[in-house]
Amino acid sequence: MLAPKLSPHAPAAQWKVTALGGGHGLSASLQALRRLDTDLTAIVTVADDGGSSGTLRDEFGVLPPGDLRMALAALCDDTEWGRTWADVMQHRFASRPESARTLDRHALGNLLIVALWEMLQDPVEGLRWAGSLLGARGRVLPVSTTPLTIHGTVLSQSADGALSSRAVVGQVELARAAQKGRVTEIGLDPAGAPGTPEALEAIMEADWNVLGPGSWFTSVLPHLLLPDVRRALEQSKAKTLVTMNLTTDTSETLELDAADHLDLIRRYAPQLRVDAVLADPTSVEDVSRFREAAHRLGARVFFDRVGQRDGQPIHDPLRLAAAYRDVISSF
Amino acid sequence: MLAPKLSPHAPAAQWKVTALGGGHGLSASLQALRRLDTDLTAIVTVADDGGSSGTLRDEFGVLPPGDLRMALAALCDDTEWGRTWADVMQHRFASRPESARTLDRHALGNLLIVALWEMLQDPVEGLRWAGSLLGARGRVLPVSTTPLTIHGTVLSQSADGALSSRAVVGQVELARAAQKGRVTEIGLDPAGAPGTPEALEAIMEADWNVLGPGSWFTSVLPHLLLPDVRRALEQSKAKTLVTMNLTTDTSETLELDAADHLDLIRRYAPQLRVDAVLADPTSVEDVSRFREAAHRLGARVFFDRVGQRDGQPIHDPLRLAAAYRDVISSF
Repeated sequence: MLAPKLSPHAPAAQWKVTALGGGHGLSASLQALRRLDTDLTAIVTVADDGGSSGTLRDEFGVLPPGDLRMALAALCDDTEWGRTWADVMQHRFASRPESARTLDRHALGNLLIVALWEMLQDPVEGLRWAGSLLGARGRVLPVSTTPLTIHGTVLSQSADGALSSRAVVGQVELARAAQKGRVTEIGLDPAGAPGTPEALEAIMEADWNVLGPGSWFTSVLPHLLLPDVRRALEQSKAKTLVTMNLTTDTSETLELDAADHLDLIRRYAPQLRVDAVLADPTSVEDVSRFREAAHRLGARVFFDRVGQRDGQPIHDPLRLAAAYRDVISSF
Repeated sequence: MLAPKLSPHAPAAQWKVTALGGGHGLSASLQALRRLDTDLTAIVTVADDGGSSGTLRDEFGVLPPGDLRMALAALCDDTEWGRTWADVMQHRFASRPESARTLDRHALGNLLIVALWEMLQDPVEGLRWAGSLLGARGRVLPVSTTPLTIHGTVLSQSADGALSSRAVVGQVELARAAQKGRVTEIGLDPAGAPGTPEALEAIMEADWNVLGPGSWFTSVLPHLLLPDVRRALEQSKAKTLVTMNLTTDTSETLELDAADHLDLIRRYAPQLRVDAVLADPTSVEDVSRFREAAHRLGARVFFDRVGQRDGQPIHDPLRLAAAYRDVISSF
C-alpha cells in the first residue's frame, strides 16, 4: 500500500515518446507505451465540453480535466497502489435519487485535478502533483493551457436527398451532428491558441511522437489545428507514428475508411512526414488504397493484431505494446 | 515530492495513544501528539450535519467526512508531500458566482473520502487508504460507523426573565441554540449506536487516551454518550488525559468555567477515572475550584502555557507536544 519508490537517479529510458490524443484512444496508447522502457509524455486535448468536465469548465473557468484524468489513470502502475488510485481517479459519484444530486456523475479525479489547479494556479504543476500521487509512469500535459472549443461543418442529406451543411460548436454537438452527417471541416476557438511550452519541448525532444488511436475529429486531429503543435511535430527530429483505430465504423466517422483517416492527417498537416502507420489488419478493408494513403504521408505500414481477442474494438495493452516495440525497433 | 517511505519494520513507538474529539480541537491534539514517538489513533465524532459534510451525508447516506478529513490533515508530516496533500485535503472549491455552483465550498478531502467509501464500501478501509496517500502519521477512525445525530435541551431566558427549555436536534442547531442559552442535556440518536471495533480496540490497548480540547458539547462529550466507547475508556488499562480548551468563553459554553467542563465529563462518564488534566493557566479563572473538580475525577492537574504567543485561543503544536510529553513522562 506504500507509494511507489522512485529512484532520483533512474537510468535514462531507451526511448523518449510523446502520445497525442484524448479519451479512450489515448488511454490505450499510454497503457501500451508505459509498458516499454520509455520516457513518456501524454499530450492531451482540452476541448471537451460535456459531462463532469463541462460542468467544471463552466463552474471554475478551468481546462476540462476529463481527458487529462483518463491519461493519468492510464499511466498508473499495475500494483496495488497504482490500481487503487487509478480506480479512485476514475470513480464517479452516484448520489441517492431522492437527494439534491449535486455531485452525481462527477469523476473524483476531475475534482482532484481542479482542486490542485485552484491551489497551485498552474495547470502543469497541478498535473505533476496528481501524477506524483498516482506514481504515474510518465507525464501528462494539456496540449494548451487555453480551454478550447472545437467547431465544425457537417454535411447532411435530408429525406428527399437534398444536401445541406451546417456549423456546429462544441465537442458534444459535433459528435452528435457527425452521427447524422459527414464532418467536412473542423476548427478550434480561439484559433491559434498557443501550445503548452512543456508539450512543445517534449515533442521537439522526442524520439517518437505517436498520434492516435482515438476519435479522429475530436481527439486526434485537434492537435494539428494548433499551429505551435503542428510546427513542433513537423520540425521535431522525432519519428512520427500514427496508430489507426480498430474500427473506422464509429459514430463520428461513419463514411470514412482507414485511408480517409490518413488523408485527413495530410489535409490538416500537409508538411508532416509520418514514418510509420500501425493498423490492425481487421480494420483495413481496402489494403492497397490504405498503402497508397500511407505512402502519400511518407509512411511504412505495419499490420499487427492489436485488438482484444473477444472481438471488442478495444486495444489490448500488451499486444499494442509489443506492436509499438516492433515498429520502433525496426527503424 | 515523492511519497514518504515507511519502513515495514518500524520499531515500536514509545507510547500508544488515542486522541478523541473532532474539529479544530482534535486537530490541535493530533498535531502535537504526532510530534512525539507515538503509535497514534484519532477517534473522531460523526455527528456533524452542516456544510459540506451535511450535504454529503444527505446525498450519499455516508458518515459526515469533515472531522475525519481534518484529523487526516493534522496527521500529515511537515514535508513537501505532507504539507501539499494536507492543503489539498483542506482545499475548498470556490465556484464562479455566475455558475451553477454545485461544488462551491466542498472540501476536496471530503469528496476523496466519500469516493473511497463508495468504492471500498468500508469506512475504516477507506480512511486507511486516505491516510496512506497522505503518509499520515497515525490512523484515523470514526468513533462509530453509524452516522449519528446529536440532540440536546437548551435553557434560555426571555427578555422578561422567564426561563424556558427547548429540545434541539442536530449539531448545527445545537451550536446555534447554545449561543443564546445553556445546554442542560445532550444525547445521540440512535442511542446506543455501537463503537467502531477498531476504535474500541485502540482505546483498550492504549497507554494513554486523550480527550479534548474541542467544542465540549459537540466534539468531546459525544464520545462518552456511546456506551461501548465509554466502557472501553473506563476499562482500558490506559491512563486518561483531559486537555482543556484555551478559552471557556466559546459560543457553546458561555456560562461554563473550566471546573464546569470537568464536571460535565464526570456527569456523562461517572465511572471514568481521569489521571491528568492539562490546562493553560490563562484559561482557568478559579484555580481552587478547578483543582477540586479535577480531584473529583481522580486527576492530577498540569498547568502549562500551550497557546500561541499572539494571544489567539489556538494551541501551539510544539508547546502542546512538549506539555503532553511532560505529562506522560511524569507517570
